[in-house]
Amino acid sequence: MTIPEELQGLRQSIDNIDAALVHMLAERFRATRQVGILKASRSLPAVDRSREEGQVARLRQLAAASGLDPDFTEAFIRMVIAEVVRQHERIAAEHARKG
Amino acid sequence: MTIPEELQGLRQSIDNIDAALVHMLAERFRATRQVGILKASRSLPAVDRSREEGQVARLRQLAAASGLDPDFTEAFIRMVIAEVVRQHERIAAEHARKG
Repeated sequence: MTIPEELQGLRQSIDNIDAALVHMLAERFRATRQVGILKASRSLPAVDRSREEGQVARLRQLAAASGLDPDFTEAFIRMVIAEVVRQHERIAAEHARKG
Repeated sequence: MTIPEELQGLRQSIDNIDAALVHMLAERFRATRQVGILKASRSLPAVDRSREEGQVARLRQLAAASGLDPDFTEAFIRMVIAEVVRQHERIAAEHARKG
């Protein structure tokens, strides 16, 4: 099957956007790692439900305004937050182990 | 509970990154919508397994190089691709309905 030229051009854009997404996610997890260390050192809980619901509501609005499906956006941010909570729990456990 | 100033600063960065992620995702789905229209008009299949596996492998490498968990990255891109396939199937059905 030959790939139409227009499809190849769109795929190049998608690949560039994906590289940007990966790098933004890497930077986001660098920031949340710092949050995890800070929370562990102050014995703050890994989960902050009111912060989380605020993030979801804000990103649903941003998504709607930019033509992105709000339900997909919510599923995405909740997946990211779940990973962050796991990261924070690991950091807290390590902090407790080290004393 | 008072929020330490350092935590507030990190949360501001996270919120900025999240806004960037939402806008990049919106742009990505704009591109895949074009791909869906193109595929429907040429009767190309919604799913392209070899393209998908190439994307996953490339993004896992990019993730590892930027300090992001490759398994999380794979789960993320597969979630995005599953949404794109649903989008393409909707576009194909609409195209068929219109004749």
